[in-house]
Amino acid sequence: MNFGSDNASGVHPAVMAALAAANDGTVASYGRDPLTARAADAVREMLGAPDAAVFLLGTGTAANALALAQLCPPWGRIFCHRSAHIETSESGAPAWMAGGAQLALVEGDFGRMTPETLSSRIADYPQEDEHDGRNAALSITNATEWGTVHAPDAVAALAKVAHGAGMAVHMDGARFGNAVAATGATPAALTHQAGVDALSLGGTKSGCLALEAVVFFDPERARDFAFRRMRAGQLWSKHRFLAAQMLAWLDGGLWLLLASHANAAAAELASGLQAAGMQPMAPVQSNEIFLRLPRTTIVRLRNAGLRAADWPTPGDNTDNATIRLVTSWATREDEIAALLGAL
Amino acid sequence: MNFGSDNASGVHPAVMAALAAANDGTVASYGRDPLTARAADAVREMLGAPDAAVFLLGTGTAANALALAQLCPPWGRIFCHRSAHIETSESGAPAWMAGGAQLALVEGDFGRMTPETLSSRIADYPQEDEHDGRNAALSITNATEWGTVHAPDAVAALAKVAHGAGMAVHMDGARFGNAVAATGATPAALTHQAGVDALSLGGTKSGCLALEAVVFFDPERARDFAFRRMRAGQLWSKHRFLAAQMLAWLDGGLWLLLASHANAAAAELASGLQAAGMQPMAPVQSNEIFLRLPRTTIVRLRNAGLRAADWPTPGDNTDNATIRLVTSWATREDEIAALLGAL
Amino acid sequence: MNFGSDNASGVHPAVMAALAAANDGTVASYGRDPLTARAADAVREMLGAPDAAVFLLGTGTAANALALAQLCPPWGRIFCHRSAHIETSESGAPAWMAGGAQLALVEGDFGRMTPETLSSRIADYPQEDEHDGRNAALSITNATEWGTVHAPDAVAALAKVAHGAGMAVHMDGARFGNAVAATGATPAALTHQAGVDALSLGGTKSGCLALEAVVFFDPERARDFAFRRMRAGQLWSKHRFLAAQMLAWLDGGLWLLLASHANAAAAELASGLQAAGMQPMAPVQSNEIFLRLPRTTIVRLRNAGLRAADWPTPGDNTDNATIRLVTSWATREDEIAALLGAL
Amino acid sequence: MNFGSDNASGVHPAVMAALAAANDGTVASYGRDPLTARAADAVREMLGAPDAAVFLLGTGTAANALALAQLCPPWGRIFCHRSAHIETSESGAPAWMAGGAQLALVEGDFGRMTPETLSSRIADYPQEDEHDGRNAALSITNATEWGTVHAPDAVAALAKVAHGAGMAVHMDGARFGNAVAATGATPAALTHQAGVDALSLGGTKSGCLALEAVVFFDPERARDFAFRRMRAGQLWSKHRFLAAQMLAWLDGGLWLLLASHANAAAAELASGLQAAGMQPMAPVQSNEIFLRLPRTTIVRLRNAGLRAADWPTPGDNTDNATIRLVTSWATREDEIAALLGAL
Repeated sequence: MNFGSDNASGVHPAVMAALAAANDGTVASYGRDPLTARAADAVREMLGAPDAAVFLLGTGTAANALALAQLCPPWGRIFCHRSAHIETSESGAPAWMAGGAQLALVEGDFGRMTPETLSSRIADYPQEDEHDGRNAALSITNATEWGTVHAPDAVAALAKVAHGAGMAVHMDGARFGNAVAATGATPAALTHQAGVDALSLGGTKSGCLALEAVVFFDPERARDFAFRRMRAGQLWSKHRFLAAQMLAWLDGGLWLLLASHANAAAAELASGLQAAGMQPMAPVQSNEIFLRLPRTTIVRLRNAGLRAADWPTPGDNTDNATIRLVTSWATREDEIAALLGAL
Repeated sequence: MNFGSDNASGVHPAVMAALAAANDGTVASYGRDPLTARAADAVREMLGAPDAAVFLLGTGTAANALALAQLCPPWGRIFCHRSAHIETSESGAPAWMAGGAQLALVEGDFGRMTPETLSSRIADYPQEDEHDGRNAALSITNATEWGTVHAPDAVAALAKVAHGAGMAVHMDGARFGNAVAATGATPAALTHQAGVDALSLGGTKSGCLALEAVVFFDPERARDFAFRRMRAGQLWSKHRFLAAQMLAWLDGGLWLLLASHANAAAAELASGLQAAGMQPMAPVQSNEIFLRLPRTTIVRLRNAGLRAADWPTPGDNTDNATIRLVTSWATREDEIAALLGAL
Repeated sequence: MNFGSDNASGVHPAVMAALAAANDGTVASYGRDPLTARAADAVREMLGAPDAAVFLLGTGTAANALALAQLCPPWGRIFCHRSAHIETSESGAPAWMAGGAQLALVEGDFGRMTPETLSSRIADYPQEDEHDGRNAALSITNATEWGTVHAPDAVAALAKVAHGAGMAVHMDGARFGNAVAATGATPAALTHQAGVDALSLGGTKSGCLALEAVVFFDPERARDFAFRRMRAGQLWSKHRFLAAQMLAWLDGGLWLLLASHANAAAAELASGLQAAGMQPMAPVQSNEIFLRLPRTTIVRLRNAGLRAADWPTPGDNTDNATIRLVTSWATREDEIAALLGAL
Repeated sequence: MNFGSDNASGVHPAVMAALAAANDGTVASYGRDPLTARAADAVREMLGAPDAAVFLLGTGTAANALALAQLCPPWGRIFCHRSAHIETSESGAPAWMAGGAQLALVEGDFGRMTPETLSSRIADYPQEDEHDGRNAALSITNATEWGTVHAPDAVAALAKVAHGAGMAVHMDGARFGNAVAATGATPAALTHQAGVDALSLGGTKSGCLALEAVVFFDPERARDFAFRRMRAGQLWSKHRFLAAQMLAWLDGGLWLLLASHANAAAAELASGLQAAGMQPMAPVQSNEIFLRLPRTTIVRLRNAGLRAADWPTPGDNTDNATIRLVTSWATREDEIAALLGAL
């Protein structure tokens, strides 16, 4: 019963097989190999963005931080939800890589800003000058850290506010597949057609070994990004093994099947929980479920083999605490049944 | 009627005279001159802190940013009020100079956190690990950007929370004299005796030309700070002219007289405003007054010669807007009378 | 005939098999899995350093830059050979990650400083103060970018100079296995016993997919390094796949066998070249050979299928140019024969 | 007999008087005052550069570091002479402020690169890619740290090489007046007409209290520089006191008279030394003289009241050491006579 993190799951067999298949002979290093070119094409095709600039790298923190460093000057401000990964879990990487930029946190239920909360927060910084800095970028997480998703119109509404304020729009798509699966939108509709300028596209959480991409829909925005990636130590020398993951992950829409599986597992688990009288704290729209439970129950479940992250949340008290349950591409029926049984 | 900023006022004659007096002959550069040693002693004496490490420099932004960089590692978090100067008006300097640190904004009326709002905000970052970063420093502004002040017990209560969370405590004392004058506390009581670890002591706003000091009450905390100051371009070569300002400013308690004058001028102005039925938005405790006025009135006052900063504030609307009035060491009775008359 | 780079070769089958084997079930992410603990133990055992702190990550640039950032303050100076990878090929990563540190380049034949050239260069910065900065670290590349190696006594002699000047010692071991194989020294003798404080241990060039380690022989030096690695985006979420590579690579001394193979291939190639009257420019001690050839010959060889890097070198002219030939764990006899035949 | 540094001298009376004169009444802060606008005009007029963007600030280290940060991306390389102040005496400030840029040191006698030594050094970095970084800027010091000067044709020859390599050209003019006085060239001829893109114009060493300017001859290059200056803590709030210095320093060509005085004093001292059989080590072209003397002589001179900096130089030994003598705008005849007498 491992619902600790989608990172706890392994690599999909097709991706692992692609790594082995890519291991034949010698090829040019640092991304000048044929697989890398094909992988970039495949990303462009998946996103319906034939002109996009595509860069592969190994971790989501690097993808987010480098993408934002590209969009935001050192004296800039990046708006994001207060639960965004770039705020809570990256040890300041975006601020650092952007040369000292600042995050401006926006409120909103369950991981989602609204155009109103975003506008209001932007209004806290009404002028751009050398004292106040510049409002430079908006980062939208999709699916969010709370397991909710933004449909294309929600993305577009936020992007409109951002663009209207002169800012670029980034999407943290560490769980992009889950958002696509949940909304039924096309990747294009959820990104560039909704106003997203740069996407962190995450494969690691959803069946890959270590694979993320940074995509700039306007290639002009990618100017000198190759330098940023290299000096952050994110340019793999044996780059074919990033490319091979990407090709296998996109091939035949595997990425979407895997995300759909994870979402369906979460939905099934949520149904079972509700049937047992336990209401998830947030709408279960992708692959995460948050539960506030009696601490005694949590201990009992852990003793029964549950792995789930403690998720300290306002409202917790001496009796009750919050845990996060994450399903993945590899979650099995029997794990769900076991957890529901244990409850 | 210049109430635009205490920075709009000039240099007190005694300070200017001290600059001229220091201009005799040649002395060692970069702070190895006798005046600098005497100035550091004078700061230590004023603060009742015989062991403190004292560094002079030219601007308040540099003082704050360098002090915080010393207290906070690159992966650290600095808690401050959401109206703090380091958040609103320094273009990200503290984050940058601290190598990519992040500010965590705390709520509170009129520039002041409470132990509760601070604790609550710290609780948003309940654990220290490589993902979450480190809760590293608290920065208290005194007097605040809203013209309110923290008395020693208020500082101590905040410092206790910070220390309890393993954090160091910085005080942004760009208007430190105003806080001392307003509270009647000793400088010692308001700083190290209340738990402050590092102080940005501001002279510029209160009668100096360009003079700030960074003070570390425990000299161990100042290790390598000389490097930080130098590489930020904040080590004046003709350092005697920083020292001369400090000596003149501290001599005979001039600093406190000047701050008291500014505070008294604000009090007088506030009384007049209240007598005229205009209630300042925040308690007038030091040298700043915030007024929400009809926009037509603001235009009329400006036409009559008023200089005051627009201060866009939630609650402003098409009819009413907020302005900030700042008094200084140089504010004259006739300016106050003229403003009250114009109203 | 791919002699372009050891990065052009693939992954050794045992390493690839270990990746597949590690892909079973769910495990804790971010390095809290059992394999990671075992891999760290294995590194410590290989290095004969039971107390060392070991961190795995994905690229050599990250390993070098983060290790040096740990050893060198922002106002520090890192001494290295002018051909060091950190100087020529990392786009400034060490300087950046160390917060603005500077490299001081040292001369020496074929990638190797001598105690004399190092001492002389240190003497260019005779004092430590806030103007001059601090002489903080020495970085020794072993095997060097010129394919030469430092034996333990050579390392010790350089480390002695560095330590005598108050500096820490880093070894860029992107080709550490090649150095061990070439010198016949134990890993311990070549590192901590010779005065090395931190090692970048490289697996990628020698049979791994993407695997490097940063090792601090005194764990005290590793304080807070976990934060550095995370915020650089170098902490893999599915960390078991770094660990699995390391375990397979170290198992049974595979790492040394692979490096020995590469070295032997280079030696054989060098012999053939010399027999054909072509003298390598530098002593061939590990897996790199530099040749100055008529440009017409280079063109002919490329047309015959040779892949080798252009290596512009002082002394090249309109008739002659320099190329670099690199052998790897995967270099085959027939490639060597083909190249010698083509010549 | 203070020949320790031009920073050891004080402020010219006309500059001090201008500070006092500027201290009348209230004016807008942060450079929005009338004096600042006039000072920028005066700089433009002096430089014959009606379109130039002019920024005032307080220290030379800040001027150099910020100017170079503007010209050089984080992954860039700044070429300078190995004796340049940015290399030897700024504790890494330019590298840090430029986000991790690197200095590439160029050889040349007595502080001066030649087009050949510069070209040769550039050739060490023959390609621009994400590994190698970018050759971004050349910094020429004029007058140099060795007291030599570059005439316009020398500047132009270096600038031509730099521009040919796609780099921008910065001049560190901490002693710009001395260079103008020595060469007899116009400021225009020595800067933009010779290909200089950005100038650090130094007043502090030559009669000001704390005053430097950064000038971009093409205002397009100054984009967002205001943010850089502010977040480095280099935007004085009482900015009129920077402007007043500049106006007084430029008024009636005072700056050039002061520099000419310093140069003449050095020439007279050099003549006396040569007459006494002591040959300066470098051509005495501005206001610095380097002498290698018996250590016993140095001790004797210091005992007689000489202040001069030790200047450890290759070639020093147990018997002989190098000292630097600097004259300034304030050097008096009797000091020169006293020194020559003591010798």
